[in-house]
Amino acid sequence: MDGRRTIVVALGGNAIIEEGTQGTITEQFANTRKSLKAIVGMIMEGHKVILTHGNGPQVGVHLIQNEAASVQVPPSPLGVIVADTQGSMGYMIAQSLYNALLKQGIVKQIVTIVTQVEVDPADSSMLNPTKYVGPFYKAEQVEKLRARGWIIKEDPGRGYRRVVPSPMPLDVIEKDIIKDLVDGGKIVIAVGGGGVPVYREADGSLEGVDAVIDKDRASSLLANLVGADELLILTGVERVAINFKKPDQRFFDRLSLSDCELYLAEGQFPKGSMGPKIEAACDFIRRGGEKVIITSLENANEALHGKAGTLITA
Amino acid sequence: MDGRRTIVVALGGNAIIEEGTQGTITEQFANTRKSLKAIVGMIMEGHKVILTHGNGPQVGVHLIQNEAASVQVPPSPLGVIVADTQGSMGYMIAQSLYNALLKQGIVKQIVTIVTQVEVDPADSSMLNPTKYVGPFYKAEQVEKLRARGWIIKEDPGRGYRRVVPSPMPLDVIEKDIIKDLVDGGKIVIAVGGGGVPVYREADGSLEGVDAVIDKDRASSLLANLVGADELLILTGVERVAINFKKPDQRFFDRLSLSDCELYLAEGQFPKGSMGPKIEAACDFIRRGGEKVIITSLENANEALHGKAGTLITA
Repeated sequence: MDGRRTIVVALGGNAIIEEGTQGTITEQFANTRKSLKAIVGMIMEGHKVILTHGNGPQVGVHLIQNEAASVQVPPSPLGVIVADTQGSMGYMIAQSLYNALLKQGIVKQIVTIVTQVEVDPADSSMLNPTKYVGPFYKAEQVEKLRARGWIIKEDPGRGYRRVVPSPMPLDVIEKDIIKDLVDGGKIVIAVGGGGVPVYREADGSLEGVDAVIDKDRASSLLANLVGADELLILTGVERVAINFKKPDQRFFDRLSLSDCELYLAEGQFPKGSMGPKIEAACDFIRRGGEKVIITSLENANEALHGKAGTLITA
Repeated sequence: MDGRRTIVVALGGNAIIEEGTQGTITEQFANTRKSLKAIVGMIMEGHKVILTHGNGPQVGVHLIQNEAASVQVPPSPLGVIVADTQGSMGYMIAQSLYNALLKQGIVKQIVTIVTQVEVDPADSSMLNPTKYVGPFYKAEQVEKLRARGWIIKEDPGRGYRRVVPSPMPLDVIEKDIIKDLVDGGKIVIAVGGGGVPVYREADGSLEGVDAVIDKDRASSLLANLVGADELLILTGVERVAINFKKPDQRFFDRLSLSDCELYLAEGQFPKGSMGPKIEAACDFIRRGGEKVIITSLENANEALHGKAGTLITA
């Protein structure tokens, strides 16, 4: 570590709702508190921190609620649901982090910024959506769901699910405010759930689009836009591996940009999980970022000191 | 008008969902656009603006959705629902205002801050909740609802509803950040729905509480905390009246603090509507604020120039 740095920390959605549960709010607060231990350590060392987070399980909950009440109240589009989760998850994270820092005798200003992220309405994913959202459905429900204009695909072995576009993030609308705040020493929670996807009309005005943005890609872009030194992607594994869960599995302490590009081309990193993380890491480095660390929540602090995780540099 | 001022503008929840409707998102965006015409005028005149907003209809929608899906997913507590609405309404307002300003050739940074507002856990309203939230129920449902620990009261002639505490706001946790942003020329959307109600534990840590805060009271407090010059409360009527809708009804262009106190003591202003607005206005003046204007959305700009509305000063 060379002094005080600006670090974008991307928390998985499962840092707040544990995988496979739907999570009461009490459980969500408890998980959030656990997740933030590593962040407290970084702040105590004087680093400037932007927190980003996933929202997959939370969007799932809202979609179930929207659907269950669809006769009584009009369901919300996906972008508005993402904005909902930015509000509630931002609140939970901000309050939990405030309290955790207070226990260490530190009073910090923490702020959640509702964030819009610009995408290209002609992004290839718009025509070919692949991102699963919401609950599983039975085969006999599929026809009715498709009649709503939804694209339904089989998630092999698990059931049928709605798929939506997951376009590439191009810009963060609130980037200047986020940069000013973090430069001024505030802890900022931003691009929650990858940000609310918007596109620009010909006259420059903003319009929402029914999609979700990958939170690691949005975090990577934000990290470049605010001139962050490091991008820390927290996930379920301590280090990145090739031949994952095979006899010749190999974990990495370090990877170069060209290593990553090679293994990506080989298809080593699955599309739904490690793939977008490695791509987000590569993008950060290609756009001039210095280093990316991919590790688990539990190992975040050790990783910042070079004692755990996979370090990716140019 | 004496030059550029900092103005806190409190929009009613019905500025976004029209009274008596549940509002599709398309309708909500359309209403938001209409509501923001007056705000665009203020910004074009160079004033610094903080926007606050109600969320009654939106909380109602979330409560219906929570209940409809309660078998599948755990319902959220009220504070978390308020945070949800801060996210989604903040997003809609920010985007609509950005676009409206752009049409005038103005590019402004607009930011929604998820806001926590501190209340006293021993506030008298905690023991005697009076604020109606959510849908109407039938008499035969009441027993079951009370078994959840809810307090259910009859809303005379309309049905049964849940009542929750509406404690007085004491502090805005994010006040310094909001002040810095507005002083720096950003348009800030804050204390949506009156803010997420929180209280402080003995050690200073923050905890959520199942309540809602009156948005005009929270707006008034925020206006003092950031040193705003004016508080503009937008509602359904052009001016404040006594003997409202009676033969001797009298509208006011101006009211002094002592006029307001007198008429409040006389019970001239109903508790559920004009009462808290006048009290919020009085509080702003008593805490050192200069002027409050109460008027309708349509008359906001005329009112700022002294041509409409009720002006309240010391």
